[in-house]
Amino acid sequence: MKKVPAAMPQGSLPRLFLFEEAHKFFSAGDGDPAANLARRRDEMKAILGGKGAGLAEMTASGVQVPPGLTITTANCLDYYKQGKMPEGLLALVLEKLAKVEETVGRKLGDPSAPLLVSVRSGAKFSMPGMMDTILNLGLNSETVNGLAAITANPRFAFDSYRRFIQMYGNVVLGIDKEEFEHCLSKLKQSEGVKLDSELSAAALKSLVASYKEVVLARTGKPFPENVQEQLASAIEAVFLSWNNPRAIYYRDLNKIDHNIGTAVTVQSMVFGNLDDRSATGVCFTRNPSTGEKALFGEYLIRAQGEDVVAGIRTPDKIASLAQTMPDVMAQLSATVQMLESHYRDVQDIEFTVESGKLYILQTRAGKRTAEAAVRIAVEMFEEGIIGRNEALMRVDPREINSILLPSFDASAKSAAAKGGRLLAVGLNASPGAAIGEVVFDPDEAEQRGKNGEKVILVRVETCPDDIHGIVPAQGVVTCRGGMTSHAAVVARGMGKPCVAGCETMRIDASAQTFTVPAPDGSPARIVRKGEVISIDGSTGEIFLGAIETRVAGLTKHLAQLLDMADSVRKLGIRANADTPYDAQVARRFGAEGIGLCRTEHMFMSQDRLPVVQEMILADGLDSRMAALDKLLPMQRQDFIGLFEAMDGLPVTIRLLDPPLHEFLPRKEELVEEVRALEARLSDLNRHSRRKVRNAVARAETALSEKRALIAKVEQLHEVNPMMGLRGCRLGLVFPEINVMQVRAIFEAAVDCSRRGIKAQPEVMIPLIGDVQELNAARAVFDACAAQVMQEAGLEVDYKFGTMIEVPRAALTADEIAEVAEFFSFGTNDLTQMTYAFSRDDAEGKFLQHYLEGVDVLGQKRKIFKENPFVVLDRKGVGKLMRMAVDSGRSVRQDIKLGICGEHGGDPSSIAFAHELGLTYVSSSPYRVPIARLAAAQAQIEADERGGQATQRDK
Amino acid sequence: MKKVPAAMPQGSLPRLFLFEEAHKFFSAGDGDPAANLARRRDEMKAILGGKGAGLAEMTASGVQVPPGLTITTANCLDYYKQGKMPEGLLALVLEKLAKVEETVGRKLGDPSAPLLVSVRSGAKFSMPGMMDTILNLGLNSETVNGLAAITANPRFAFDSYRRFIQMYGNVVLGIDKEEFEHCLSKLKQSEGVKLDSELSAAALKSLVASYKEVVLARTGKPFPENVQEQLASAIEAVFLSWNNPRAIYYRDLNKIDHNIGTAVTVQSMVFGNLDDRSATGVCFTRNPSTGEKALFGEYLIRAQGEDVVAGIRTPDKIASLAQTMPDVMAQLSATVQMLESHYRDVQDIEFTVESGKLYILQTRAGKRTAEAAVRIAVEMFEEGIIGRNEALMRVDPREINSILLPSFDASAKSAAAKGGRLLAVGLNASPGAAIGEVVFDPDEAEQRGKNGEKVILVRVETCPDDIHGIVPAQGVVTCRGGMTSHAAVVARGMGKPCVAGCETMRIDASAQTFTVPAPDGSPARIVRKGEVISIDGSTGEIFLGAIETRVAGLTKHLAQLLDMADSVRKLGIRANADTPYDAQVARRFGAEGIGLCRTEHMFMSQDRLPVVQEMILADGLDSRMAALDKLLPMQRQDFIGLFEAMDGLPVTIRLLDPPLHEFLPRKEELVEEVRALEARLSDLNRHSRRKVRNAVARAETALSEKRALIAKVEQLHEVNPMMGLRGCRLGLVFPEINVMQVRAIFEAAVDCSRRGIKAQPEVMIPLIGDVQELNAARAVFDACAAQVMQEAGLEVDYKFGTMIEVPRAALTADEIAEVAEFFSFGTNDLTQMTYAFSRDDAEGKFLQHYLEGVDVLGQKRKIFKENPFVVLDRKGVGKLMRMAVDSGRSVRQDIKLGICGEHGGDPSSIAFAHELGLTYVSSSPYRVPIARLAAAQAQIEADERGGQATQRDK
Repeated sequence: MKKVPAAMPQGSLPRLFLFEEAHKFFSAGDGDPAANLARRRDEMKAILGGKGAGLAEMTASGVQVPPGLTITTANCLDYYKQGKMPEGLLALVLEKLAKVEETVGRKLGDPSAPLLVSVRSGAKFSMPGMMDTILNLGLNSETVNGLAAITANPRFAFDSYRRFIQMYGNVVLGIDKEEFEHCLSKLKQSEGVKLDSELSAAALKSLVASYKEVVLARTGKPFPENVQEQLASAIEAVFLSWNNPRAIYYRDLNKIDHNIGTAVTVQSMVFGNLDDRSATGVCFTRNPSTGEKALFGEYLIRAQGEDVVAGIRTPDKIASLAQTMPDVMAQLSATVQMLESHYRDVQDIEFTVESGKLYILQTRAGKRTAEAAVRIAVEMFEEGIIGRNEALMRVDPREINSILLPSFDASAKSAAAKGGRLLAVGLNASPGAAIGEVVFDPDEAEQRGKNGEKVILVRVETCPDDIHGIVPAQGVVTCRGGMTSHAAVVARGMGKPCVAGCETMRIDASAQTFTVPAPDGSPARIVRKGEVISIDGSTGEIFLGAIETRVAGLTKHLAQLLDMADSVRKLGIRANADTPYDAQVARRFGAEGIGLCRTEHMFMSQDRLPVVQEMILADGLDSRMAALDKLLPMQRQDFIGLFEAMDGLPVTIRLLDPPLHEFLPRKEELVEEVRALEARLSDLNRHSRRKVRNAVARAETALSEKRALIAKVEQLHEVNPMMGLRGCRLGLVFPEINVMQVRAIFEAAVDCSRRGIKAQPEVMIPLIGDVQELNAARAVFDACAAQVMQEAGLEVDYKFGTMIEVPRAALTADEIAEVAEFFSFGTNDLTQMTYAFSRDDAEGKFLQHYLEGVDVLGQKRKIFKENPFVVLDRKGVGKLMRMAVDSGRSVRQDIKLGICGEHGGDPSSIAFAHELGLTYVSSSPYRVPIARLAAAQAQIEADERGGQATQRDK
Repeated sequence: MKKVPAAMPQGSLPRLFLFEEAHKFFSAGDGDPAANLARRRDEMKAILGGKGAGLAEMTASGVQVPPGLTITTANCLDYYKQGKMPEGLLALVLEKLAKVEETVGRKLGDPSAPLLVSVRSGAKFSMPGMMDTILNLGLNSETVNGLAAITANPRFAFDSYRRFIQMYGNVVLGIDKEEFEHCLSKLKQSEGVKLDSELSAAALKSLVASYKEVVLARTGKPFPENVQEQLASAIEAVFLSWNNPRAIYYRDLNKIDHNIGTAVTVQSMVFGNLDDRSATGVCFTRNPSTGEKALFGEYLIRAQGEDVVAGIRTPDKIASLAQTMPDVMAQLSATVQMLESHYRDVQDIEFTVESGKLYILQTRAGKRTAEAAVRIAVEMFEEGIIGRNEALMRVDPREINSILLPSFDASAKSAAAKGGRLLAVGLNASPGAAIGEVVFDPDEAEQRGKNGEKVILVRVETCPDDIHGIVPAQGVVTCRGGMTSHAAVVARGMGKPCVAGCETMRIDASAQTFTVPAPDGSPARIVRKGEVISIDGSTGEIFLGAIETRVAGLTKHLAQLLDMADSVRKLGIRANADTPYDAQVARRFGAEGIGLCRTEHMFMSQDRLPVVQEMILADGLDSRMAALDKLLPMQRQDFIGLFEAMDGLPVTIRLLDPPLHEFLPRKEELVEEVRALEARLSDLNRHSRRKVRNAVARAETALSEKRALIAKVEQLHEVNPMMGLRGCRLGLVFPEINVMQVRAIFEAAVDCSRRGIKAQPEVMIPLIGDVQELNAARAVFDACAAQVMQEAGLEVDYKFGTMIEVPRAALTADEIAEVAEFFSFGTNDLTQMTYAFSRDDAEGKFLQHYLEGVDVLGQKRKIFKENPFVVLDRKGVGKLMRMAVDSGRSVRQDIKLGICGEHGGDPSSIAFAHELGLTYVSSSPYRVPIARLAAAQAQIEADERGGQATQRDK
């Protein structure tokens, strides 16, 4: 453990900090103050919020920051506890604000030199756009004139005032934005102008008056002239915005604690909209989409604060700042480089240029796509900024999935383009390919997405209120806004494809259509709600109709990162694969073997199913054997393909597992078919029998076959098939099935061996609950394997093992380990049995209630934090696994232990597998890279805990 | 632990013992030889077999036993190990036999004074009639004349010889008995006699010649003259009979080890068929059917060995011996009394009288009915013969069931008799009432019984080969044979009703009918295969048709025994009861509370179901609440009834548990109904619409209702309902159901309290897997209970608890015990989940294979010894229970712990519950007496192990 200065109890801390004051509280203690500060950054963020902490730290580092102060999160918690503003808070704010006024040389409410401030939220964890902000606070009918005078820009002063009234009116007074927009539209109409910027100072002054009328009409009170009242109300509004619906939704989505509260930062305003030498912008020290090491961002000249992020105007790329304001660009480059070095991570920086002077308003770790996260981690390691382990810990394994997500097949895409299906090209705001039906309304997107429909949300622009419609959509398209617009940021955060700022697109909300110009000048093309489009978030292209997708391989940087992971991890990684193709993909992604080959999947293909049905319908051993004889060469070929693909690596094969009725048609369908045949026969019998003799004979044969099939389906019907005649029970009741499968495996292995391919079958028996089941299965297995090897005169390197997926197997693992050379935990079934949850039924019927909350005396109460089918339950299922591992090892010290349930691809579950000291986890091929990284992280975390694998409870 | 002399290694023991030699080997060691012998009786039985040990011990006690010797079981094991007769065995036998010859004064094979011997099997555990016996060995064409001379009875000599040839021919040479019977029949015909006893010596001599011809024809060799060869072959045949099919079947049925082998006793013959002062018989020291203390048995004058047991002639009651042979009767009474005192248990004694001299051939603990076992145990305790604990250990709790089995309702029976349905009256050979279809063939009885059909096996007489047909039958009827005939003994052992020796009945096997004389002299009544009869094994009556049954109460002696049990046991006994009637029965049988009231059973009655369906079909909270409001008063009344019945005792109530679709009709039925309605509508529409308007309207309404019902049934359909929306999940998704049930419980308790009835509800939540489920349920429960009590101004004494039936609940029992005041182990579901066995599917589909044996490389191999739904699995399910008990107690020291699964009525499982230190077990009302006795036995066994509850593995 690192030595950290003892945390300061927040109760004893000041309730307010000037930016320049904070660092001395957090850099206190033994040793280097800067190092102390860095170590206590989390504590600082918890108290000042991310924004406040950043401003304080930047100020301490000598970065040019507009002065201000931060009200700590403790005040917010008090506010909610007491139900009112904490006693004396305003007085404290005003007392500290005096220092700011002194530095800036202006005073809040001073008619001649008025100080304007912003009032912003800021929590420990970034919640972009989810809470409220008020700018230009301090303006009233007197100070607006003072501002006009000192800036010599009355137009700017009244524009600022009307923006302030609109924002305050909306956030503090709860007046719909539309009401103000309506006044603005009317004014532009009467003035005969199109753009806001064309309005004169006088017009804006009249707009201020209109806005004040709106406020009076809606609230019954005039807009407050008292600047202290403005300040107090704004602070309270920010506190309140902690619990607005979209903030709660965002915290739920991102699993952020609802009880930590927000800080409030009151900062002197600087104005990016003051004149043509003013600008406001956002930049990243590295490209947040690709990870490329190059300044990345956008800015708007003559614009204020939220204009860039809100995506209302489409901004310019940061590179062009070198032309428009070369000295500012030089200053900016140096500053952000310094900030990246200081924080040792990519920074996402907000800046404002006021009449040529650069101010940094905010810096924070830059959100990035998974692809960027990987490249940045690898390159920062190569640049010596961070160490190998730190680089590995920088990437969330769950995100890797998005890199490996399907992309469009290049040739299919170019064919679509040639076929005239390319509708438009916007900004490549969040990479990946998505296909879905066009939907314009976020509510509808939410509804249909929840129903499992694939939709793409198309919006003029998105705002935080739309987030519930973005989550369930396949992808997002916006007509306006850039790479840092709301839609782009949110989509990248979710790994969801997004095309932003597609300006050629026009949306007609009432008609529920969008229009794009036709390429050849012919009439515009109209796309209606419900039509399918394909969007490529990596290129910004939008196509009509669905385009074939292709799977991405490992990128160069991901391959590098995973190689680093491989050098760290001790846990082996295998893949679940049933076909040679899957096995090849898995191997390309770094799988060290197959951990689960489900032989039943080999039975499902069109050419096999009739033979499998023949086997099931067999009315005796002889006819069953005849069908199995037909299956044998097919199965053998399956295994040959797998062994070839995995040459030299182990292939774990599970013998037949599912209930046999899964291979037969559903009874209801058969009953319908019988009815149809009966009707046909009755029809035919109305004709002269002689003429239709053949047709009658055919129908009668079909009818009797169908009836036999129904009888068999009924015979195989089970009340709870999950716990019925399946798994090892099949092979015990019908040993000839196991004989065929074992023979196919060993004949395939022999065939490969002869051709110099090293086959390493590891055969396992599913659903074992008692060692006697395994003993019986092993006797058949041993005899059959020995016979094939003897026939061939060849020895095959193999193992015999069992799934541990029935609770009783875990409870009696010591007995079972006497017979099994390896255990493979089937955590899906083990979770089902341990909870008595049928996954098929639970997820649709009550698990959703458990995860979202059930009604307890009128309140929603969550029963589960996590879905146990996604994140392995350590307390229950994990306890059984630990028992099995311990008692299995007590009997067979070198027993191989693995996981082959879906948890094998979940990082938290992989960490648990590491703690248990398993030999390997096996995941789906596309999750192998995730597993490799997660296994490395588990190792690093274990090393940090002192190399000791201690149990962590959820 | 008692001090027992060290067991003697069998290897160092002699391979043969004369009767008078054995006791010195087994009475060796410190202390009283008689006491040592008694303590080492089991060891002696293992080596000499039950029969040999008994003869040796009787000989040592001075009882008159025909002298002989016993070949130990070690020889049998060697025989099977070596595949041939052990080297030198015959020489050893002959060497010892010389002593016998000396005592008797005759010699084997001596033409003038030939010794005849019997060669009999005898294993450690009694297997009556299952292995082979040969009598009269030592006869050949010379010695038969010697025997005729010394007995002065040539007829007897040739009769003995022909019996010997027949028995030897069948047992040793494998010739069908029928072949000999055929000769006999032909002879009787040609001699013009009906009975064997009417045949002259000359006729019998010619029969011997015919028999020898049969032997020569069938084996190609003459019948052996060499008596040593006869002896060697007979010994080998007895060894071989250890593994004949019926012996294997019997051992399987009675769970006797197949590897212990049989001893062989060679004993000098005495002849009950020598003259009119000779007889053979069987007697019990107490009545084996009722337990009454009175000599009980049967004998046949002029009969040999097997004649009595085989049931070929109907013997005389033992009481009549006082008239026919008063001196023998006096001798017999004294001897058997001495034997009962010696063995301290009821004795089943075989005796033979040879010319007025009494010999005891065998004594063993008498098999008895459960009723007799109870009475004997109680009376022997009262007589001071055995102690209280010994008395309690004398009765197998499983047998008690038969005492409590239904008997025929007396008035229904007398009505049937008046109505002329009484067909016949036989011997009341095994008590109890049975109803079933007549079947004559044991194979058919087995087949149909396995299919779950109720059959009664009707036979002329039964033999050991019929046992597979007796097991699955409801009861047995025989035309011949007495109370100690094969059918009677076997049926009593199984607690199965039997009417034996029903001599008025004539069976026509080819017509598959039986005939009984009509009471009024009208033509005989014919009953065909498949007709239903009712038999009363307690009275011997046979009725045509089914007769209403009534449940027996506790008998006086059983009540006494259970009172003794109650004074010993520490484990509490409750009953599973859902109705006031069941609760009353349970209380009468000694239940100390209700351990499980399944509230769903209250919903199933005709008047409730429509309301329950209304609740399920409700399309919103309001309509669901309306239906629940209708259910509330009904449920309240249910609970009032239960509380009244259990006044002062706890009533454990489980809230609604099963999936809701169980309350709805099956989809297939509904689909059929819809089709019928559609057809009807289409029919109606062919008529003038006006005339059938009302009918159409009705059909249309019905159709739309049915369709709505189908939709709901489909919505509620689950793939694995056992693991779906049921148990606590119902109450969490629809809390209003719990609210209604809790309100009904507490309103009922309040109502009872007001009337001076003490209600003690213990409410439990089913299917808990996570403490958060229980927390949520408890919040609703607490609020609702508090509200009702506040409304009433009354406090109710109650507890809140949970079922432990999901593995995860057992694994996290420490958390759960924080919330639950008691645990009730639902061992049915816990077994299902721990094994991943759906009981509905397993028992029909593969569990039977597991219990009977699956095919492993052509051999049957048993997977399970016991059905885990009958006998609690200690290794798996039991381990979970132990974890739950330990961790539950670690959190809540005084937590109440019970079992409410069906295992609560199984003695082995009750013993385990005792070991775990549970508070109580709960069983079905009729198993409460079983549970009381089993709990006492568990306590006694624990005390004998030193009061320490140590774990016993299966």
